[in-house]
Amino acid sequence: MGHTVGEQSIQFDSSVYLLGAGSVVGKKEGDGPLGKYFDKIGQEDGLFGCSSWEEAESTLQKEALSIAMEKAGISREELRLIYAGDLLAQTIASSFGIMGFHRPVYGLYGACSTMGEALSLASMAVAGGYGECVGVVTSSHFCSAEKEFRYPLGYGSQRPLSATWTVTGSGACILGTRKSHARITGITTGKIVDYGLKDSFNMGACMAPAAASTIEANLRDFSRKPEDYDRIITGDLGEIGQKILFDLLEEKGIRIEERHMDCGIEIFDKETQDTHAGGSGCGCSAATFASYILPKVEKGEWRRILFIPTGALLSKVSYNEGKSVPGIAQAVVVEHC
Amino acid sequence: MGHTVGEQSIQFDSSVYLLGAGSVVGKKEGDGPLGKYFDKIGQEDGLFGCSSWEEAESTLQKEALSIAMEKAGISREELRLIYAGDLLAQTIASSFGIMGFHRPVYGLYGACSTMGEALSLASMAVAGGYGECVGVVTSSHFCSAEKEFRYPLGYGSQRPLSATWTVTGSGACILGTRKSHARITGITTGKIVDYGLKDSFNMGACMAPAAASTIEANLRDFSRKPEDYDRIITGDLGEIGQKILFDLLEEKGIRIEERHMDCGIEIFDKETQDTHAGGSGCGCSAATFASYILPKVEKGEWRRILFIPTGALLSKVSYNEGKSVPGIAQAVVVEHC
Repeated sequence: MGHTVGEQSIQFDSSVYLLGAGSVVGKKEGDGPLGKYFDKIGQEDGLFGCSSWEEAESTLQKEALSIAMEKAGISREELRLIYAGDLLAQTIASSFGIMGFHRPVYGLYGACSTMGEALSLASMAVAGGYGECVGVVTSSHFCSAEKEFRYPLGYGSQRPLSATWTVTGSGACILGTRKSHARITGITTGKIVDYGLKDSFNMGACMAPAAASTIEANLRDFSRKPEDYDRIITGDLGEIGQKILFDLLEEKGIRIEERHMDCGIEIFDKETQDTHAGGSGCGCSAATFASYILPKVEKGEWRRILFIPTGALLSKVSYNEGKSVPGIAQAVVVEHC
Repeated sequence: MGHTVGEQSIQFDSSVYLLGAGSVVGKKEGDGPLGKYFDKIGQEDGLFGCSSWEEAESTLQKEALSIAMEKAGISREELRLIYAGDLLAQTIASSFGIMGFHRPVYGLYGACSTMGEALSLASMAVAGGYGECVGVVTSSHFCSAEKEFRYPLGYGSQRPLSATWTVTGSGACILGTRKSHARITGITTGKIVDYGLKDSFNMGACMAPAAASTIEANLRDFSRKPEDYDRIITGDLGEIGQKILFDLLEEKGIRIEERHMDCGIEIFDKETQDTHAGGSGCGCSAATFASYILPKVEKGEWRRILFIPTGALLSKVSYNEGKSVPGIAQAVVVEHC
């Protein structure tokens, strides 16, 4: 079971354990600073043996979830529910990625915050007694995302320095009731926050206010201070978003600099990889969580962390119709046990 | 609380009540057979006072949810969570529709099955003790959907007789712990089912196998017969999908003809409205549920129904890349009390 805490949070009384995780990424991500942590790294062409970028992205999900199941030691039949999402229109990477598992499915869309949303809903399911084993998986692919949100790659458009680089990758986790060394003890559901920014090449700035809102709500709802977390880890704010996050939180008297980490900043080497402000995409936080963050909690290197994937809510159509880019951030508290 | 039943279902032990519902539709839907049941009907232009179809669709969600809250007698602050979704890329109708409520949000994508998914996840939340009042809302708009999935309206393309007409409409419900005359007693989560069909102008045929799969799972998991339901109501199979559904279920020895109803068939008058196989879109089942189905359960005219919104999982890109159109169907058991 769980119970509500404050305005936006839920605390889980019965435990929700993380039983296994899988990550699959592209070559560029494999060449980055986190390269050695990923379970599987693709070839230069980014196609993962497929004939389209979309199929390749589906394959990432398929493989990440399969690895997570294998590590959790569970069979396909034991998977009660799957929560899945991606960035593409009508989340087709997920539909075609998880179809072959033949398991009950809920499709999600939370832009790059989807891994936070999926972990939240899966925790609610496990704690609620709705399944002993529940899977979550999200993905993004640089090539399918550029086509979806900006320009076809062949167009060769220039990217401003504020732009982030969509991660080619997928991360999956199995949550369940069986004891392990990491558990989800609470969540904070995000509100949509709109500061009126309209620049889809500066998504860090669009998402930072949502990250600030959810972090503030989490600390308030659970009566915690930043020091109560070993790390506060956002999804893909990148360098510009990170600065704005610090500023916004400081206005509220909250200082997180010492313990803040951003998956988008960690996943690429800015100096050598030409990725500008950092990585993004719902594969960014998902693959980083599955490969790098979760193992540190499992080992007890970090006792308690706050993981907050962040999403920019835009589409080609909303952008071209001159709408702003609101943000959302979904937070999950993960503790060593 | 709830507990799992069979392979795909959950039964709710503590009650999940339906506290209020709202529906807003376009003029064509208002002129149809269910016209008198809707809460609000728009003007001929379909713009609902906005300057784009997408903004109009957001307005539908905003108004439907506001009406549902008013009928449930709850304030914005009492709404613990909102589950929302639509058909557009990156579900922007929902993002911009519900942003102004400033409530914690989870975005969903289940194509036209999204209302079933939203009701399912909201029920899980209420029964799990995660909120005393939870809102669900989904929408579709004929003009934004044609642009998204097929051709711009100005192109004037011909529609084959197997095509359905996307409903301009939104339906919203408030679920909670406070006693009322209708409650959700169980859900059956759908699997993605792919029969390899590729015709986006015959979505009824694409979705019928998923509807059959979820109905069969529901009857098996709860050890029920079709007669245990006063009505078995699919989302938007239309006339062609309905025939296929009957055939597929009959192969399994299940006959539902006498008690089957399809929101897509009910919402338009085929003879006079030129809508071909019926209505579709996640606004179709949502608006029909909120305006016509739920009141019949509340009055006790129907004691127990099975509501199964159905979704076709395709995008412009998947279609143009020659992929099939898999289906999914999410079922909810609603009972008078």
